[in-house]
Amino acid sequence: MSKEVKPESMSLHSLGGRAGEATLEQEPVCIFGTGDLGRSLGQRLLQTDYKVVYGSRRPHTCGSLPRGAQVLVDVSNNPEKNLYPEANAAYLQKLLPGCQVVKGFNTLSAWALQNGPSDASRQVYLCGNSAEAKQAVAEVVTKMGLTVLDRGSLSAARELEDIPLQLFPEWRLPLQIALCLTAFFFFYLLIRDVIYAYVIQGKDISFRIMVSLANKVFPIVSLIMLSLCYLPGVIAAFLQLYRGTKYRRFPDWLDRWMLCRKQLGLLALAFAFLHVLYTLIIPIRYYVRFRISDSIVTQIRENQTSKFDTTIAWRSDSYYSVGILGFGLYVLLGITSLPSVSNALSWREFSFIQSKLGHLTLLLCTLHTYLYGWDKFLRPSMYKWHTPEGYMVSLVVPTVVLVLKLLLLLPCVDRNITRIRRGWERAAPDEDKTLLM
Amino acid sequence: MSKEVKPESMSLHSLGGRAGEATLEQEPVCIFGTGDLGRSLGQRLLQTDYKVVYGSRRPHTCGSLPRGAQVLVDVSNNPEKNLYPEANAAYLQKLLPGCQVVKGFNTLSAWALQNGPSDASRQVYLCGNSAEAKQAVAEVVTKMGLTVLDRGSLSAARELEDIPLQLFPEWRLPLQIALCLTAFFFFYLLIRDVIYAYVIQGKDISFRIMVSLANKVFPIVSLIMLSLCYLPGVIAAFLQLYRGTKYRRFPDWLDRWMLCRKQLGLLALAFAFLHVLYTLIIPIRYYVRFRISDSIVTQIRENQTSKFDTTIAWRSDSYYSVGILGFGLYVLLGITSLPSVSNALSWREFSFIQSKLGHLTLLLCTLHTYLYGWDKFLRPSMYKWHTPEGYMVSLVVPTVVLVLKLLLLLPCVDRNITRIRRGWERAAPDEDKTLLM
Amino acid sequence: MSKEVKPESMSLHSLGGRAGEATLEQEPVCIFGTGDLGRSLGQRLLQTDYKVVYGSRRPHTCGSLPRGAQVLVDVSNNPEKNLYPEANAAYLQKLLPGCQVVKGFNTLSAWALQNGPSDASRQVYLCGNSAEAKQAVAEVVTKMGLTVLDRGSLSAARELEDIPLQLFPEWRLPLQIALCLTAFFFFYLLIRDVIYAYVIQGKDISFRIMVSLANKVFPIVSLIMLSLCYLPGVIAAFLQLYRGTKYRRFPDWLDRWMLCRKQLGLLALAFAFLHVLYTLIIPIRYYVRFRISDSIVTQIRENQTSKFDTTIAWRSDSYYSVGILGFGLYVLLGITSLPSVSNALSWREFSFIQSKLGHLTLLLCTLHTYLYGWDKFLRPSMYKWHTPEGYMVSLVVPTVVLVLKLLLLLPCVDRNITRIRRGWERAAPDEDKTLLM
Repeated sequence: MSKEVKPESMSLHSLGGRAGEATLEQEPVCIFGTGDLGRSLGQRLLQTDYKVVYGSRRPHTCGSLPRGAQVLVDVSNNPEKNLYPEANAAYLQKLLPGCQVVKGFNTLSAWALQNGPSDASRQVYLCGNSAEAKQAVAEVVTKMGLTVLDRGSLSAARELEDIPLQLFPEWRLPLQIALCLTAFFFFYLLIRDVIYAYVIQGKDISFRIMVSLANKVFPIVSLIMLSLCYLPGVIAAFLQLYRGTKYRRFPDWLDRWMLCRKQLGLLALAFAFLHVLYTLIIPIRYYVRFRISDSIVTQIRENQTSKFDTTIAWRSDSYYSVGILGFGLYVLLGITSLPSVSNALSWREFSFIQSKLGHLTLLLCTLHTYLYGWDKFLRPSMYKWHTPEGYMVSLVVPTVVLVLKLLLLLPCVDRNITRIRRGWERAAPDEDKTLLM
Repeated sequence: MSKEVKPESMSLHSLGGRAGEATLEQEPVCIFGTGDLGRSLGQRLLQTDYKVVYGSRRPHTCGSLPRGAQVLVDVSNNPEKNLYPEANAAYLQKLLPGCQVVKGFNTLSAWALQNGPSDASRQVYLCGNSAEAKQAVAEVVTKMGLTVLDRGSLSAARELEDIPLQLFPEWRLPLQIALCLTAFFFFYLLIRDVIYAYVIQGKDISFRIMVSLANKVFPIVSLIMLSLCYLPGVIAAFLQLYRGTKYRRFPDWLDRWMLCRKQLGLLALAFAFLHVLYTLIIPIRYYVRFRISDSIVTQIRENQTSKFDTTIAWRSDSYYSVGILGFGLYVLLGITSLPSVSNALSWREFSFIQSKLGHLTLLLCTLHTYLYGWDKFLRPSMYKWHTPEGYMVSLVVPTVVLVLKLLLLLPCVDRNITRIRRGWERAAPDEDKTLLM
Repeated sequence: MSKEVKPESMSLHSLGGRAGEATLEQEPVCIFGTGDLGRSLGQRLLQTDYKVVYGSRRPHTCGSLPRGAQVLVDVSNNPEKNLYPEANAAYLQKLLPGCQVVKGFNTLSAWALQNGPSDASRQVYLCGNSAEAKQAVAEVVTKMGLTVLDRGSLSAARELEDIPLQLFPEWRLPLQIALCLTAFFFFYLLIRDVIYAYVIQGKDISFRIMVSLANKVFPIVSLIMLSLCYLPGVIAAFLQLYRGTKYRRFPDWLDRWMLCRKQLGLLALAFAFLHVLYTLIIPIRYYVRFRISDSIVTQIRENQTSKFDTTIAWRSDSYYSVGILGFGLYVLLGITSLPSVSNALSWREFSFIQSKLGHLTLLLCTLHTYLYGWDKFLRPSMYKWHTPEGYMVSLVVPTVVLVLKLLLLLPCVDRNITRIRRGWERAAPDEDKTLLM
């Protein structure tokens, strides 16, 4: 019996599945298998006044099921995807046609069950072919202080069995973008800064890779990713303006892009966080201390006098100040992305923060970069080997996003887009369209 | 029919509203309107095994409702407050007296529904005149993995319709206080520092606005707001002591004040965070680097010797150390304010952190400011134009709060207040009082 | 009647406890006592369409209970543990044998009830001897938008009454470890640095206690606690390998240790956070500024020349860079420990972050410390009074953990441990074992 080799396969068996009756509590629940999840479930069920009986995890002992047993809950998980041709629960249903198999509990972690639901996801996904069996299991779930999410018939079992094997599916694309950008700008700056200095000036400044180069790559990637986070919204608005309706689906690539905006933004925040730390340790670096002391010594030995330049002071202070305020808003956006905080916000509040404050953050961070560049944009000496500095490249996308957003905020355009988002359509909607979905 | 112009108005129609019967699932749910919320609801209902039928969003087609339809759920929202004389749901009920209208779902965001409830508020507010209709809808809600919050009869519909239009109502007062304090201290310090230097000494130090001035305003506002966060608690305790009972309501202004303590504290934390960043970038500022190098050059040219002063070292290090510890506790208070963290705390744990650690934070931050002032409080030269420095002004409220709190911690006072908080009353309570509520 | 002296004792009385009937709503709920919790409960019940009647909090008026009253909910709390020989609810049940007493609501905070459940724990623990009475109360709870967790018969009342009196029970051991380590390393470094300098060199450098010493103690304690957080996992793996099964319980001390790993890690993060802040303020300290300016002045007066050392630059920059990346991951681990974030993760995602990224964090932080030591490990002058530097001591445990973890990652060992964790046992499992639980 191949079922035997499936590890951690276990079944919760509630006897007498007459939905909604208090007598349910008097009858024992039978758990097959003594894996981690089975043991934790048993403990929780005991706490919730159920009687629990543990059985062997070999299905052939299923013959000894007490009479009247109707509902069998399959809580098994697979060690990897596509290991078996069909879902465990479907297989079990075929083996035991007399039982009503319900798939569930498998997305919970045994660890979380033991440590109380406040520390773990409380959603129990259920699926099964019998509505009554699901109802009976749903009651057990509710008694345990968890919430039920019904996912339909047993054909959804495969999907449920794949959930615990997921590894950040929605983070994959944003992480790839971040890695590609980081790699590109790392080599771009390595060539422009370190290799250029070695080839043209014969100096070995390779030690700068660890901090100086990293502190150029991180803010560049952060700014680009932050603007990529707001670009799809702007594109969508122009698409709606062009189409004159909001009732047509966006192209797939735009949909996918919009769904990973949160992840893009959080990665951008992580890079900004690193940028801040790398900037703040500047004055304690050996290289920086050496250079400062060296310049003072030179100044005295060569009897130079330096004059205080108010413009540079204004520029440098504005640059830092705008950067700090931008980072402050960045962190605020990150905090409101925490599930428990965004739950507590009304939709209008959430969109105020993520849209209004988000664009303000982008504006401040872009301004911060422009202030960093200041008058260096037009100095030819900055274009080593005819290539622009990294931060100049990073300004392209955010500038485009901000200009497009500014266009959308023009009163005449804004009026149109608001009208469309409230359901107005340029052409009279024919009756078909309302049934299109 | 004016209903037609209400955008995004849509109705979820569950046929056969006999409460608590499994047959409910077999009958289709009818959704009128194809707005964002309607489409998302439809998708979720389909996932939850319901059959969904979309109808036109024109109510006159309601005549074609299948026979037996009894429950109509109004999920509509208005684009702004007070747009219509009565609630949408009440209007719908008048239009369709044969149906039992239930208001609900309107506080959910379509976006959140599509992306799973773990990322969004799961509370569905319901109200309606028929308990059975509400029960039928409540079952649909529970099946969808959401939780119901019954808000009574249809007269509450107006209130429910206003919820999605709220924009941080509880943050308004704290934000106004923060803005007023920031503006006041900004101009106060602008006059004392920048304009004074210009008028009296003829120097233009306006560049200091961006960082030096900001880094004076932020900690001042932060300290005052933190103390404002603990002042009402102290006032309330003295009021209870004076009245000799805890069963009399606080005056309205105190109640309002106490309800926005969390917001006051979080804004204070935001200002403290900015203060930390502004402080940490000090050594990389052009102005600071210039001044340090200038002082060294002067020292050498004029052949001065400087002597290391242990007292100054002690003072400066204590000042930083106390500030860092205070900020650490500040951040801890902020983290425990996150909904998911405070949920995991027992009431005693929450009050331990917010009260004991909160007052300790205030103590450390006040001490930090006193150490900053050190011996400058009595130096007449500090009082330009006969006005005190900004940080001296900021010390008034926290000092008052700490002294009052210290009085409350005296054993004799503490014993009294504990007794009162456990229900003891100075005068014998007459029977009326217990029924006062 | 001794009940009278129990402060804040109050009872929620739902009349006509016939489970699951809509008529329940028509009958009033009676609340005894006007304590904070009683008032808040009343408000919430009124919002949820219940009629509320307040009674005196003297139990002898219980005689005036309306006929038919069956269910009495005891929501009382005690001011301290073990104040009364038996649970309040059990005492109440004895006083009123005609009523069915249900214990509940006492773990909620009055403050949270008034401010909406999104801001507070929504779990209501219930216990009682009558399943029907519990069912009736459970319905009231669900109507209020809260979730029920049934904890069995009235014998659990004592446990429920102790919950609000808990003060971070799971934090106690980690906090004690942190305090002991901090105290030990503080005095160790005080003797090695400050007292050594005073005794041997006759210098008073006591001012260094505030920042320099603190900034040595904090990272040391942080690193040791982080490694203590991963040591039990490694020990457990070796124990499973040795035993050849995962079905035998770990020794008690290991179980307790594994349960407080989260707290150990969060305390380690707090210490790391302080270390970062203490490090970043280094350049604005009076002592540091004095020393830098002093060394430049000396250099010029004595006409020395200093040469830039690329190796030192590499080492110092790598040291900072690795430290920052380690701290970044540290913060990421902290964020995923927030209940709402870990809830949103699948078990595989959670274990990926806490195990893979956790060990990477430990590796980076250990490397950071080794880079700090660099070539000082073998210099005899570093061993004042024949004792090693603090950071050398701190490296012992993390190095052990990393070496053991490396052993576990060897393909042959890894294969074995994976097999065991999937349920394989070295010896054939006899039938007894499966029933062992």
